[in-house]
Formats: sequence, structure tokens, C-alpha cells
Amino acid sequence: MDYYKRRTLTFENAHVVCGYTVAGPKENDGRLKGCFDIALVDDKFGQDTFEHAERKMFEHAVDGVIAKGNLIDNEVDAIFGGDLLNQTVSTSFAMRKQHAGFLGLYNACATFVESLILGAGMLNNGLTNVVCLAGSHFSTAERQYRYPLELGVLRSPVTQWTATGVGATLLTTHSERKTPKITRATVGRVVDFGIMDVNNMGAAMAPAAKDTLVTFFNDTGTTPQDYDLILTGDLGKLGKDILIDLMKRDGYDISKNCADCGASLYFDEQQTYQGGSGAACSALVFNSLALANLNKGNMGKLLLVGTGALMSPTTSFQGDSIPAIAHLVEVQGGEFCGVDVR
Amino acid sequence: MDYYKRRTLTFENAHVVCGYTVAGPKENDGRLKGCFDIALVDDKFGQDTFEHAERKMFEHAVDGVIAKGNLIDNEVDAIFGGDLLNQTVSTSFAMRKQHAGFLGLYNACATFVESLILGAGMLNNGLTNVVCLAGSHFSTAERQYRYPLELGVLRSPVTQWTATGVGATLLTTHSERKTPKITRATVGRVVDFGIMDVNNMGAAMAPAAKDTLVTFFNDTGTTPQDYDLILTGDLGKLGKDILIDLMKRDGYDISKNCADCGASLYFDEQQTYQGGSGAACSALVFNSLALANLNKGNMGKLLLVGTGALMSPTTSFQGDSIPAIAHLVEVQGGEFCGVDVR
Repeated sequence: MDYYKRRTLTFENAHVVCGYTVAGPKENDGRLKGCFDIALVDDKFGQDTFEHAERKMFEHAVDGVIAKGNLIDNEVDAIFGGDLLNQTVSTSFAMRKQHAGFLGLYNACATFVESLILGAGMLNNGLTNVVCLAGSHFSTAERQYRYPLELGVLRSPVTQWTATGVGATLLTTHSERKTPKITRATVGRVVDFGIMDVNNMGAAMAPAAKDTLVTFFNDTGTTPQDYDLILTGDLGKLGKDILIDLMKRDGYDISKNCADCGASLYFDEQQTYQGGSGAACSALVFNSLALANLNKGNMGKLLLVGTGALMSPTTSFQGDSIPAIAHLVEVQGGEFCGVDVR
Repeated sequence: MDYYKRRTLTFENAHVVCGYTVAGPKENDGRLKGCFDIALVDDKFGQDTFEHAERKMFEHAVDGVIAKGNLIDNEVDAIFGGDLLNQTVSTSFAMRKQHAGFLGLYNACATFVESLILGAGMLNNGLTNVVCLAGSHFSTAERQYRYPLELGVLRSPVTQWTATGVGATLLTTHSERKTPKITRATVGRVVDFGIMDVNNMGAAMAPAAKDTLVTFFNDTGTTPQDYDLILTGDLGKLGKDILIDLMKRDGYDISKNCADCGASLYFDEQQTYQGGSGAACSALVFNSLALANLNKGNMGKLLLVGTGALMSPTTSFQGDSIPAIAHLVEVQGGEFCGVDVR
């Protein structure tokens, strides 16, 4: 076997039952207004701390996706997911209320797609229903990764805005209706392009997205034109432009059908500069608008590419560059799609 | 299907090719002296910071297990693992040198067994060779989770000592020799017993270990007496005693064949109080002494139960209790064992 093909997987029976989204107030004032299952009026969600608010979003997302999928909690076998807080505490603490097994993940903002890959893969091992989820919160991320909110630090024009929200997906091995399906995936590897500017994560992550996309196209014999949409996680506007350029150098034109969840989330006047970032970006956009279009047949084939920057404040203080990773899943449309994905 | 059985999985072809261990100096002065592949003379490993030393241990462990398994790096498909540092940076940064895909995990000190479950499970999805690993470093954990080392804070008698080391396991779908195999697993769920004392993690984790063990025995119809050894991760001496008591209340006697990696790692005069803790504990003991005994036929059937406390300093400051998780794998012995595991 060509070693290059070793990172691309095929799934036979990973049906997407439904997605569920809990979005922050700023996110629901953006381009996807009204697309979410729940939108918070205030980003503390009635809690005493932002961290507890983030945890409560995770609790609602898990309960929500299980209820929306007409299951009860006992019928879910395992939950795959994570968040950006140290020790991924938002996800872990939210899991105290669940009967299902929990497999905690961390690949930064690529965690949601990582959870889809592992969730879809483990369905072949005796699991029947799994939940995959990830999320983030602007105010917890800002004070953990950058500065105290009260300091009012000016932001660089290359920065992105950590999205507030949680997105969850319910996968199952069998479905009576023709659901969207996760059909293939490429597991990302860690790519370090030597970027040192922690404000410019789009530049750090674009080479990883390119590596994974090129690997997937090579391994499967597909091209960008086989897909209705190539949806990256949180490269932002600048990072998306870099990715389009990098792909062009490798002979792939994705300029016509590439969108970035982060770049698409906010209006310009919301002053997020390069757009959204954070584990919530791909989780929110996939589980709302993208999944709705896959369900309705507006979209036949989607590539979702989660992108993550794997540094910590400590590594940056100690002079390290920013390694990045990108995981990819291929999703085919549901009920009303006549598309043959094979 | 009884929902209780939903968390227990069976693996057909998860062969353990080999394990590889990099241990700290204090660990190699303990009860397992001489059992490790590499033992550090000083715990900075020639690096400028403890964090860089921890990263270098991960790099050596991955390279080491691949070489010991007679593979080259291109032949490994995916690496599953994590560590205790914020954003699991030791693992992520070490992966920059690898061709394989990377799936970052975090379930605190249960991460190693989590990596074995997901690695074994994903072998059924087209992957051929995977590496599963986890580790920790006393000096990075101490200053991240507790106090600056220079402060010389007195330790409570219920504390454990974060082990320094990394353990890696190479799994494959096929093997010419009769290797040890990972045959079954139970995915843990999050259990919160309301323990608030961050020094007493054994007490926080023992109920999770009990939950997972009882689930496994119920689901598989086995009893503790079917196993040569029930090896828990890092409950420590006190936590192990609590687990034995809790199991007795549920009608299971594990007092004769239960050992804890953390409690077994050090001599009393090394003053670790309750013994070792940290993601390295189960990774070091499984990949050295336990695997050697499974290979030689000294041990026929092992249950390895990774235990993790899922709090962070922030959750403790904000008044939360300590949720815990325990993942379990059943491992059957190799070449010289006549034991039928079915």
C-alpha cells in the first residue's frame, strides 16, 4: 500500500441523523442569524462565570441533539468531543449528566472534524449511536489564551474572533430515511510552517489544510470540482486566501467552491477583522446551514476541513512556532439528493 | 440491546507488536528499575525547559516504538495520544516530525487507555499500523497544576507524585507471531463523586474505576477471578484501597489480583506518599513490565483500567468538584500463552 493512502479512510454506514447548535449572541447577529437551534441573549447564559456558561452550552447541545434525534440519553453509546479550555473542562464537566461513554479529544479548532472521524470510525466497532461535538466561548478563550477582557487590548488586523457556541452531531449506523452520510475522511498530520505570530493563525493553519486536501484528492482520485463546497474550519479571510494560493501552486483550483466557516460567520461591521475562529466555527456552520442544505438536497457533496493551531501560551512564551493540523471528512447529501458518491 | 452493554466493545485483530518506554530518573530508581527502554539521567533531557524535555520524551517514544517494531515512520498510519499539559502541546509538537496522521486525545491520566481503545477500534477502518501513547513530566505538571517548583510547598500525605515518562504501544492488524492482543474494551463515562480535595485524586477516581469495572463484568459475564491481574492506572495506595472496598460492596472481590500502576512505581523511601500519578503511570507500567509478562506467557489475561481526574486549576478555583473517568481494555497474552480468551 502506498503510504500516502494510509491516512484516508472509508466509512460504510455513518449516517448523520441531525445536528444541533447553541450559538452566542454575536454569532446570531451575524450572517447565519436564525439558523441556530438556540441563540443566547447574553453570553453568560445565566451563569456566574463565562466558564460555567460554556459548560452549560455543551450540556444543552448534547441534550438537544439527542432529543432532536428522537432518542433518549440511554440510547447513546459514546460521546466524542472537546473544547479549547485547559484540560477541555467544558466538555468533560458537561458529560457528568450523560450515561454514554466519553472520549475526550483535543486538536484545537480541528476537534469537531476529529470527533466526526472517530465517531464515524467507531460505529464499525459495535457502537450504534454516537454524538460528536465541539465548541468554544469568546470570553473564556480570550482570557485564557490572550489578555484579561478588562484590559481592553487593541486587536491586530490579522486577528480573528473566537466564536461562541457549541455544535453537536448525532451519528447512527442505520437510518430509515436517506440521511446525509459521512463517506470518507483524511486524518491530518501536524504541519509546522514556522509561523511565529500568534495573532495570525490563518497563516499557520493554511499549509496544514493544503496538505490534507492534496492528500485526500491524491488518495481518492477526486478533484475540487467533484464537490459542491469545500468548507474549511476557521482559516479566516486571510487564511482562506493563502490556502487558495497554496492549492493553486499544487495544481488545484478551489477558488470557485471554497468557503471558510470563520470567514462566513460575521458581517464586516461586526469588526471581527479576519472573521471567526475557535472550535465552534466548523461545529456551528456544519450543524446549521451546511447540514440543512445537505438534507434538503441543495448540496450533494461537501468536504469539511477542520483546521487547528496546536500551540499554547507556554509554547509561544518559550519561543516555539505554531504547528497546525487539518482533518477532513467527505459528506454526501441526504433524502432529496440523487448524487452517487461512489 | 441493553443500554448497559453499549459501552463495551470487541476487537478482532488488535495485535500489540511492542511497547516502548522513556522513564524519568526517579522512576528508574523505583520498583521497575531496569525495565524501561530509556531512562533519563536528568529530567531536563538536555533541554532548556522542562516542557521541551517532556516533548523530547514523546519524540523518542514514537521513534523508539516504530524502530522496535521493525517499521519505518512511513508505515505508521496514525498516532493516537496526549499528555497533561495545556493544549496537550508535548504530544502535538512531537508529532511535527512524523508522517502519520495525528488524533489528539485528552482524558487526563486515562488518556493512554483511551488511546488503546481508539487505536484498536480504528484498525477496523482501514488503518494497518497505529501508535498509541501518553506521558507526563513531574516538573511541568507541578508548575502548571500546583505551585512553582521553587516555592518548595509541603505536600499533603494523600498526594501522589506525577510520574515522568512516556509509554508508547504499536498496534497492527496482522502479525506473524502470536502477539498479545487487545480483545475487548469498556469506554468509561464521567463520574463525579463530589470530591473537592485536589490533593486526593485517588478518592475522586476510584468511583469511576468501579463503574467501568462493574460495567465490563456485567457486559461480558466475566468475574475478577477470570483475570491474572486487574491493573489500574494511578489511583495510588489510598485510591486502590477505596476501589477494593467499593467493588466489595457490589459483590466483586478484587483484593487478590488488583494492582495499581501508580502505587507500584516507587519505593516507600522515595517519599511519593500515595505513589505515582499522571498519564505516564499506566503507559510506563503497561509498556514495560506488564507487556513483558504478557509476551513471555507469565500472564494470560490482563485488565488495564486507566483512571483520570478531569478537573483543571480554573474549575477548582471556581468551586467545582472533581469529575473522573476510567477506560478499560482487556489484553490477552502472547506467544507462550495457552489461554483461550473467548
